[in-house]
Amino acid sequence: MATAAETDNLREFRTSLRVRYPETDRMGVVYHAHYFVWFELGRTELMRSLGATYGKLEDEGGISFPVIEAGARYRAPARYDDLLTVQTTLVEVSRARVRFDYQILRDEDGKLLVEGSTEHATVGPNGRPRRMPEDLRRRLQAGEASR
Amino acid sequence: MATAAETDNLREFRTSLRVRYPETDRMGVVYHAHYFVWFELGRTELMRSLGATYGKLEDEGGISFPVIEAGARYRAPARYDDLLTVQTTLVEVSRARVRFDYQILRDEDGKLLVEGSTEHATVGPNGRPRRMPEDLRRRLQAGEASR
Amino acid sequence: MATAAETDNLREFRTSLRVRYPETDRMGVVYHAHYFVWFELGRTELMRSLGATYGKLEDEGGISFPVIEAGARYRAPARYDDLLTVQTTLVEVSRARVRFDYQILRDEDGKLLVEGSTEHATVGPNGRPRRMPEDLRRRLQAGEASR
Amino acid sequence: MATAAETDNLREFRTSLRVRYPETDRMGVVYHAHYFVWFELGRTELMRSLGATYGKLEDEGGISFPVIEAGARYRAPARYDDLLTVQTTLVEVSRARVRFDYQILRDEDGKLLVEGSTEHATVGPNGRPRRMPEDLRRRLQAGEASR
Repeated sequence: MATAAETDNLREFRTSLRVRYPETDRMGVVYHAHYFVWFELGRTELMRSLGATYGKLEDEGGISFPVIEAGARYRAPARYDDLLTVQTTLVEVSRARVRFDYQILRDEDGKLLVEGSTEHATVGPNGRPRRMPEDLRRRLQAGEASR
Repeated sequence: MATAAETDNLREFRTSLRVRYPETDRMGVVYHAHYFVWFELGRTELMRSLGATYGKLEDEGGISFPVIEAGARYRAPARYDDLLTVQTTLVEVSRARVRFDYQILRDEDGKLLVEGSTEHATVGPNGRPRRMPEDLRRRLQAGEASR
Repeated sequence: MATAAETDNLREFRTSLRVRYPETDRMGVVYHAHYFVWFELGRTELMRSLGATYGKLEDEGGISFPVIEAGARYRAPARYDDLLTVQTTLVEVSRARVRFDYQILRDEDGKLLVEGSTEHATVGPNGRPRRMPEDLRRRLQAGEASR
Repeated sequence: MATAAETDNLREFRTSLRVRYPETDRMGVVYHAHYFVWFELGRTELMRSLGATYGKLEDEGGISFPVIEAGARYRAPARYDDLLTVQTTLVEVSRARVRFDYQILRDEDGKLLVEGSTEHATVGPNGRPRRMPEDLRRRLQAGEASR
């Protein structure tokens, strides 16, 4: 069972990106689905900073974190060539679940554009649920200690 | 103020698609963000069936429906070349908001793969909120009468 | 060695699609890279019509056709919600290569928007070049007989 | 008429990127169409380095460079999380045309993965061909002087 320590605010991380031309649509702003790709950049870099390179987890550990739930709330649009910051928080790590929250801000004025979250299952090479390896779980939870 | 008639289950619609190769990722299944694109296909065809062609609304009416909230729950993965059905329900039409619910099913076995919803604002040519034109609102609500 | 029969115009096929919102960009027209996705839809349906379902070739035959060269010439832009036809021609099938040519036309006025071509290697499960199986090669070349 | 100075090798530029998860497909490698997006990143950053920010050219100058021809030759596949370098060369700037060549290399071993090129028209706010403004042309050609 997840303890309080595992379900509370574990780690926050910032990563930067610039809006690409094909990420805009004919409305002149970023198409809403692309923010979910940026959420992934956020959690990937957060995990890398904790020594858990996602590609290696999949390739060497046979473990992956498919998205089982995702949501976003759009407050203001990002535009072509904007510099953005994805602020990712690891809000929950348990034996079978990982959950991240995200805020995407525009660098120029610090405005919050989009908020969202994703929840992930932990699955093994056969695509079946599996317990997260103990060392990986500790590694993901390490951010907590640094608060 | 929205009446019960405006906020209840207004219209359901089915549209079909086949999974494209670039919609898959190296996990061998559809990348989660693409389902939001398919949600859009669902609502666009639902609206077309009600005589409200979205492209024309934007081009001729200067009205658009940007996504202000979107969410999805992933139950089972779609794969390359799968035939899928997007079942879209227009669950709310008010003066300033539209909300759709979606279910994506695999044709081969009828399995429910993903559920989701999107909520939209109504904005005018200047990107500012505007009241939905009366005739459009009536048109969108027309599905209700057919129940 | 490829004979004249194998290198000449083998098979033409038409498939239809409608432009999706996220395929447009802020210029208001389709972003140029998406036409390569539509080229793939064209060749996939052409192959399906010849009894060679690409997904099954990969999954059951362990054979795939990675793109080794691709090109397009853009004559006029496609726009959101346009109905388009991809006209695909199988111009060459040899033991180790397949080549397709494409024309994308707008249904409304028959205007030619984009022309292109792709060349593919034949590789096995290990990603190494392999000879195309004889029965597959005959199947792909079957179009020739119908001229 | 373009002079030798305008049609010869004008400027080379390097920009970096990391392969994103949704840029891979079920073959486990990058889907071929995405390289055209990376070509765009290359030319955008090259232009920015010359003081010609593409977004501003469109927004303030009413000038854009739609792709009229694009091609790529694929030598080896990029994979998820690879660090890549796009090496962009401005090979031609004339009154009505711009042409770039690209090489995409994998940082880890310097291997050349993909080569390509794009050719662009110069169009004004109405989408019609227009002569490139003299100061912009000089700016783009500035790279040449620095050789």
